[in-house]
Amino acid sequence: MPLAFQDHYPERFSHCFGCGRNNPHGHHLKSYWDGDGTVARFTIPPQYSGGVPGNAFGGMVASLVDCHGTASAAAFASRAQGRDLGDGPEPMRFVTASLTIDFLRPTPIGEEVVVSGKLIGMDGRKVRVALALSAHGEVCARGEMLAIQFRN
Amino acid sequence: MPLAFQDHYPERFSHCFGCGRNNPHGHHLKSYWDGDGTVARFTIPPQYSGGVPGNAFGGMVASLVDCHGTASAAAFASRAQGRDLGDGPEPMRFVTASLTIDFLRPTPIGEEVVVSGKLIGMDGRKVRVALALSAHGEVCARGEMLAIQFRN
Repeated sequence: MPLAFQDHYPERFSHCFGCGRNNPHGHHLKSYWDGDGTVARFTIPPQYSGGVPGNAFGGMVASLVDCHGTASAAAFASRAQGRDLGDGPEPMRFVTASLTIDFLRPTPIGEEVVVSGKLIGMDGRKVRVALALSAHGEVCARGEMLAIQFRN
Repeated sequence: MPLAFQDHYPERFSHCFGCGRNNPHGHHLKSYWDGDGTVARFTIPPQYSGGVPGNAFGGMVASLVDCHGTASAAAFASRAQGRDLGDGPEPMRFVTASLTIDFLRPTPIGEEVVVSGKLIGMDGRKVRVALALSAHGEVCARGEMLAIQFRN
């Protein structure tokens, strides 16, 4: 198994509750290449229930989509420069400028969900990513993110 | 202090990690009227850090905006019918159909943030809400939600 995108982040950028390896309380989401796109797999623990038990609350869905989106943006930007995520003079760490999520059906907890990312376009330090969260092959949520490379 | 919007939700709809009174692990966000609009106040605990400590991760911002948005939608819909949130033949519980968040500046953790909601429009079971999350009087994130009343 290769390192996840998030495992290439510099130490000081790795405290995110959603995906930071240095956050002992968090989800530790891990994102990888999947052909031309990206993928992360995650099983949502039961406490992150929505109003009715058995399905995730909206913020949990947003967390997975958001963290996978910024990781995907960093990976797409690195690939465009022909380098690996952990290499280069400045860290490839992106932040979300804007995120839209359409909630199409409930997202189950306690079983694996798959978050996928596809590159829409890139302009300087801005990367646009299409995202989808699926369970059992059915799309539960679709997202679109505009991510911007973090400046030191 | 009046009851929060979320404290009017029926028991079976009150397990949300973001705002459910029956979720022992969650944030217990509480939303109230504030003039014609709505407001919730919350201090984000340090574990919900973003990549760099001191600021919240995107999913935390989305959680607060999302839970306050659906609560606000329920409150606006109740008000439009001239009734209190807890009254009526069917529960006023809304789910998110679509949520857009623009992240304008980092959202601090460990100090109070204020989430506000304003009614944009209403059409049958659909309610559109404008949302903003502020700290120290500065807007950190703006949101817009389309919420739909949950059908039994």
